[in-house]
Amino acid sequence: MKNAIYVLVENKFGVLARISTLFAARGFNIDSLAVGETEDPDISRMTIVVDGDEKIVEQVEKQLNKLIDVIKVSNLSGTDHIQRDLALIKVSVNKTNRAELIKIVGIFKAKIVDMTNTSMVLEIAGDEKQIESFIEVLKPFRIKEMSRTGVIAMAVK
Amino acid sequence: MKNAIYVLVENKFGVLARISTLFAARGFNIDSLAVGETEDPDISRMTIVVDGDEKIVEQVEKQLNKLIDVIKVSNLSGTDHIQRDLALIKVSVNKTNRAELIKIVGIFKAKIVDMTNTSMVLEIAGDEKQIESFIEVLKPFRIKEMSRTGVIAMAVK
Repeated sequence: MKNAIYVLVENKFGVLARISTLFAARGFNIDSLAVGETEDPDISRMTIVVDGDEKIVEQVEKQLNKLIDVIKVSNLSGTDHIQRDLALIKVSVNKTNRAELIKIVGIFKAKIVDMTNTSMVLEIAGDEKQIESFIEVLKPFRIKEMSRTGVIAMAVK
Repeated sequence: MKNAIYVLVENKFGVLARISTLFAARGFNIDSLAVGETEDPDISRMTIVVDGDEKIVEQVEKQLNKLIDVIKVSNLSGTDHIQRDLALIKVSVNKTNRAELIKIVGIFKAKIVDMTNTSMVLEIAGDEKQIESFIEVLKPFRIKEMSRTGVIAMAVK
């Protein structure tokens, strides 16, 4: 079971090392991690996706709250929120299947960001489910390379 | 000067802790970090943006190459590549300025993902420059909350 934890931290030297060491020491495996700027340059937001049940997530949250650089830990499960992940995917393509691929890109509202005679680079932004479905549909074309940002989220009312 | 380093690592327990500890021990500050899945479930890709000149980046690369979990370190500067970052931005809005904000969203090809009487949540995907410009234009509306994934990239030919 995948669970996302959202952590606001002070944008200070060594914070990431302290947090990821905590995860490693406790045996929590990180599925994806995104660290980026917020509206305040002194504060960064981390979104950490761990593979574990609610008990594990609760434990992680407790441990995180003990760290001095951590400002706030939240868990958006049970609240309305938007999740987004972004992927760049390089797919093999040839004369025969190019039209089909372009159609799929349209259905998923993805974007073609580069194209050669033998490959296309596609960009998709969406929630995990959408991106996973897109990847599934692309598999028969052969995925040559893929890069994903990891999930971020925002609460909405 | 911001420089991005791309690292392919084995998707193993504790890798992130080892890498981020290396950065902290050497005094390299991380600006943003994205860790996500690749086309191979056993391999993750990290994109690390550091604030430092080429000499610092070269040093970091050398140190990374010594780690056993690191498969490949690359530096895309000087090669053709696509960079993408994704941001979710919650902006204050009222009856008077809503139309103007919607116009700006259209110009930047951003998306409105949530809307209330007093706020809008916007989504934008693009390179650093586009996202920074978008944020600048939104500032007069008052940014209530922002979350960014950090940069990912892909080489193109």
